[in-house]
Amino acid sequence: MDKKIPVGIIGATGAVGQRFISLLADHPWFEITDLLASERSAGQRYGDVVNWILPDPLPARVADLTVRQADEGRADARVLFSALPASQARALEPLFASRGHYIFSNASAFRMAEDVPLVITEVNPDHLDMIPEQQARRGWDGFIVCNANCTTTHLVGALHPLHLAFGVTKAFVATLQAASGAGYPGIPAMDLIDNVVPHSYGEEQKVETEPRKIMGDFVDGRFQFADMTLTAHCHRVPVLDGHTEAVSVALGREATREDILDAFRSYRRLPQELGLPSAPDPAVVVVEGMHRPQPRLDRMAGRGMATVVGRIRPCNLLDWRFSLLGHNTIRGAAGGSILNAELMGYWGRLG
Amino acid sequence: MDKKIPVGIIGATGAVGQRFISLLADHPWFEITDLLASERSAGQRYGDVVNWILPDPLPARVADLTVRQADEGRADARVLFSALPASQARALEPLFASRGHYIFSNASAFRMAEDVPLVITEVNPDHLDMIPEQQARRGWDGFIVCNANCTTTHLVGALHPLHLAFGVTKAFVATLQAASGAGYPGIPAMDLIDNVVPHSYGEEQKVETEPRKIMGDFVDGRFQFADMTLTAHCHRVPVLDGHTEAVSVALGREATREDILDAFRSYRRLPQELGLPSAPDPAVVVVEGMHRPQPRLDRMAGRGMATVVGRIRPCNLLDWRFSLLGHNTIRGAAGGSILNAELMGYWGRLG
Amino acid sequence: MDKKIPVGIIGATGAVGQRFISLLADHPWFEITDLLASERSAGQRYGDVVNWILPDPLPARVADLTVRQADEGRADARVLFSALPASQARALEPLFASRGHYIFSNASAFRMAEDVPLVITEVNPDHLDMIPEQQARRGWDGFIVCNANCTTTHLVGALHPLHLAFGVTKAFVATLQAASGAGYPGIPAMDLIDNVVPHSYGEEQKVETEPRKIMGDFVDGRFQFADMTLTAHCHRVPVLDGHTEAVSVALGREATREDILDAFRSYRRLPQELGLPSAPDPAVVVVEGMHRPQPRLDRMAGRGMATVVGRIRPCNLLDWRFSLLGHNTIRGAAGGSILNAELMGYWGRLG
Amino acid sequence: MDKKIPVGIIGATGAVGQRFISLLADHPWFEITDLLASERSAGQRYGDVVNWILPDPLPARVADLTVRQADEGRADARVLFSALPASQARALEPLFASRGHYIFSNASAFRMAEDVPLVITEVNPDHLDMIPEQQARRGWDGFIVCNANCTTTHLVGALHPLHLAFGVTKAFVATLQAASGAGYPGIPAMDLIDNVVPHSYGEEQKVETEPRKIMGDFVDGRFQFADMTLTAHCHRVPVLDGHTEAVSVALGREATREDILDAFRSYRRLPQELGLPSAPDPAVVVVEGMHRPQPRLDRMAGRGMATVVGRIRPCNLLDWRFSLLGHNTIRGAAGGSILNAELMGYWGRLG
Repeated sequence: MDKKIPVGIIGATGAVGQRFISLLADHPWFEITDLLASERSAGQRYGDVVNWILPDPLPARVADLTVRQADEGRADARVLFSALPASQARALEPLFASRGHYIFSNASAFRMAEDVPLVITEVNPDHLDMIPEQQARRGWDGFIVCNANCTTTHLVGALHPLHLAFGVTKAFVATLQAASGAGYPGIPAMDLIDNVVPHSYGEEQKVETEPRKIMGDFVDGRFQFADMTLTAHCHRVPVLDGHTEAVSVALGREATREDILDAFRSYRRLPQELGLPSAPDPAVVVVEGMHRPQPRLDRMAGRGMATVVGRIRPCNLLDWRFSLLGHNTIRGAAGGSILNAELMGYWGRLG
Repeated sequence: MDKKIPVGIIGATGAVGQRFISLLADHPWFEITDLLASERSAGQRYGDVVNWILPDPLPARVADLTVRQADEGRADARVLFSALPASQARALEPLFASRGHYIFSNASAFRMAEDVPLVITEVNPDHLDMIPEQQARRGWDGFIVCNANCTTTHLVGALHPLHLAFGVTKAFVATLQAASGAGYPGIPAMDLIDNVVPHSYGEEQKVETEPRKIMGDFVDGRFQFADMTLTAHCHRVPVLDGHTEAVSVALGREATREDILDAFRSYRRLPQELGLPSAPDPAVVVVEGMHRPQPRLDRMAGRGMATVVGRIRPCNLLDWRFSLLGHNTIRGAAGGSILNAELMGYWGRLG
Repeated sequence: MDKKIPVGIIGATGAVGQRFISLLADHPWFEITDLLASERSAGQRYGDVVNWILPDPLPARVADLTVRQADEGRADARVLFSALPASQARALEPLFASRGHYIFSNASAFRMAEDVPLVITEVNPDHLDMIPEQQARRGWDGFIVCNANCTTTHLVGALHPLHLAFGVTKAFVATLQAASGAGYPGIPAMDLIDNVVPHSYGEEQKVETEPRKIMGDFVDGRFQFADMTLTAHCHRVPVLDGHTEAVSVALGREATREDILDAFRSYRRLPQELGLPSAPDPAVVVVEGMHRPQPRLDRMAGRGMATVVGRIRPCNLLDWRFSLLGHNTIRGAAGGSILNAELMGYWGRLG
Repeated sequence: MDKKIPVGIIGATGAVGQRFISLLADHPWFEITDLLASERSAGQRYGDVVNWILPDPLPARVADLTVRQADEGRADARVLFSALPASQARALEPLFASRGHYIFSNASAFRMAEDVPLVITEVNPDHLDMIPEQQARRGWDGFIVCNANCTTTHLVGALHPLHLAFGVTKAFVATLQAASGAGYPGIPAMDLIDNVVPHSYGEEQKVETEPRKIMGDFVDGRFQFADMTLTAHCHRVPVLDGHTEAVSVALGREATREDILDAFRSYRRLPQELGLPSAPDPAVVVVEGMHRPQPRLDRMAGRGMATVVGRIRPCNLLDWRFSLLGHNTIRGAAGGSILNAELMGYWGRLG
């Protein structure tokens, strides 16, 4: 691209907002021009109001931007990444979309809406074809595209190769989720010192339903959910970044361990083929050894954009079991959103 | 009892050995007379050689005992609690049993032996009737009785009430296990700072097989394994004490949530009826709220001897799912062994 | 005492409020009759509104009490323990005192006020004689008595024996403070996973000034600060309970290591002599070994009411250095307040 | 350089050995040709015997190298980095030096030897001129050059700018040291969950003496220790990487806060001037805010090679106090050693 596409971030001061900034700072196609946040920060220099919690330094150019008040619904950039909490996203994202903005949202507010694509770029880029229908129905010039919940993203990252190859009919998943998934301040330290905390039932429900929309078909202008039963047990653990998930799956066709490995290793999809800037290649990294994957060692695979799998072994109840791990605030949040925008940009649909 | 029964601890300086000492320090029936450990500690005052890692103070009387060398196979007490690692237990426990000692072992070495009772006092006290057969077969005056793996113990603690009431046919379990389960020094700190580690496959196998022996029948002098399929995903988490387990179960008979609750709440067994000194009452503690049980808050239920359950909700794949939690070095190790010995003492079979 | 003295807790739902409840639940002299909290909780059953974060169970009788709205300034009990944040204490504590209540406050709001006793029961019980003057000046029937900051409390707990014996002229202190000192929710987990955080300068200032008031004299109706220079470096560490402090001291008189040990071991003061219910005896616990004290092993010394010292060795710059440790929410907060009230009760000054 | 200089690593499988490999993998001047380890690993492919514990991937080329047995004292590369424990270094480093190898050692064995340079490249490169004397005395063709203890390295990293500008006469330091400083397996997880552990007195002694050798002069062929009194309180905390140190200093000349800042910011030394490959620039990074530096946020400053300072404020006892932080296994171990070798390489003294 000759000229970078201006982009903005709504909810720019929070944990996910910061991750968007960090990932977009040196992006080859996108350039941050708008930072939107609450009234408290509006009108001030970003570097003066943000409590920057990432080890990567706050880019100087971004620090100097002046924060705009999100709920005024104005931004210069047409493309906006939303790091809003669900409650605020519900009102603000439609407002911006109605004013012609293209919203790539990490919020859960519209993920399950019947005219909103819930997209993992490797899995269901065709769902983006719902956009014209969404615009027509809602009378918007802009649109909303969602990425999935952090836990869903990596679960689908590992299930989709198997689903393509063998058909996944059932999956049991138990998660050990990192603290950063709850944002900042998020979980109190007193809850995660010498402790783990079962997650809310709402999280489990997301993990049980979002994958079925994402791995489902887009037919006749409607999303058809994949015919697959999921059950989830979710937990928070004293880990900063990186969700671990233990999975058992039933497959539609018989598969050997070698077949499974082959399905993971040969999984190469549109983002990889197009060489999108944030696309991990490989998308699925297979690790060896019964003690892997581990958050500290594996979360940065593919610069935090890959899903890591290991411990592939037969399951006594279903067919196979394995462990997966992925970075929850990179691929599982900001990075997933950015990859969706990259595909749209590649297709020339951000003009 | 008029006079306390003298007992010894083999492997007295390790983490589980210390827990035995702590739990036996003021025991109403037992009195510690023998501490056995490796050659390195032999002949020395216990207080001078032990690196005491429990917050409870080392009892002064015990600190003054002189350590004996375990592999010489000599002890004054007839009753010995074994906190040996499996590799050493394999040789030493039979040696002591052959010399007339009654071994209550926390080691895994003989748990699955076909003539060794693997006992959770609430569940299968009748398995202790294997002892005469064991003695006859092996030509021992003594015997070996095992307690279960820490994860198994609490899994069975929660499954058994359901098995009695409805029949458990399948169970899926994912564990978040505490560091103390690996003893001391055990897991390196570098592995559990900002990290979780998948457990070894050996641990998973124990969790999948031990419950079937424990919940099985003792018929015609043989253990018949329960007809139940288990599959386990095990992990280590940065928690000091207290294993959390997420469980889905299929039941032989239909059960409502109220039925499940009732099965847990009405579970009262031999140790509770006899009022054995270490018996928790209730044996199963039910906690409310979607964020419980938690290790820090719940592990000391029943002075660390109870199994805590919560989060009872329907499962999309099997029938019900719930979470359980229990103290891994109290009920899950030393305390389980002591409770077995208490029952034998109550029955007058330690004479 | 024939009949228990009714007491109330202001700020009853917070972390320190819960600790007050836990420590007062079975108190031989005091009985909880009033629980005061914010408007959000007022009028409701305590057990229904509190997010109970202690491993000790919430006492059933207390759970059934109805919460009153603190800022209405009404309570049945004359004796009130304040677990308010400083900002709220500033307005509410005087209101209650003006209405005749006896306030034992853990808040920092009035600690340095020139007519408010800042008392560690072992150190300066004579400072309580300021109360009539306080009442006269302010026209109150009630009064406010403060206990010290958690870090100060244990620092003074260790310095005072040395000050009595040798005179402490200078002290350098570096702290490693537990998360619970910031209350709940308090410190975000993301700040204390794989991390430590320097504390605020305000905390350091408290540690440098409060000890001088407490160890100072009460002469001619005025507090004279001890002539002692303190400098503090404060940090938060990933520990739940238990502040560790590394201290170097200059002494007014020469002292050998044996002298120092003797000063600690012979330290027995009014609370110990009177056998007050919450008084630890000994007040100072000396531990051996270069790796002690440690929070996990030593914080419950004296049921959390003692100060633990160890690592006594010469200092290259001042005279001696040592480490100390104490429970920050027991002795360092609620327990310190209760011990002050016990002394007043013993003296018959709570009638 | 036209051709890379072959280098070897003694103690290649341990935690520091792995860090050497990671830092040398793409080094512009050095190329790893020799990996030396214990008999257990000898003769095997490095990738097959190492338990790789770094998040950075093990470089494929290095994984394929065959490990040689260290205590045979043979290596192809003349330049060897030693990651040996002190006990083994004592025998092996002289053996290699006597056979003509140039040893850059991270071990403590010879740091205080009167003919061994203990070098922080920014501080005392002139101490390397002791090498001919060392060779003459010991009859070696090779030599041993040591880098400092991890805690010392960053302490000197912050003290040296002040010493140059104002003269440091006294320093009090309290440390919060990361777990990785003890190697792997190192500290047991049970010691660092909900806990901190005072460090050994030996560590404190190193921190009190090494800086005086490093900041001392090299005059008439002898090291003269700097006239400076240090006292240290050392602790281990639940942090993976990054030592935090709280420091109070007395200065020989008066200095304002601005002077101090200026001393840090203008500190630019030989490695920076020569642009050595591993030299951080700036060498000292100043951070703002009373809650910085923090390990998680600041340890990677200068790719882990810089020392980070902050919280500069007056001290009540000495003149100034501040906090510093540095990566203990990069600059504080392998990286410090490599930077020393780079200077020698630049000077053409590795030929």
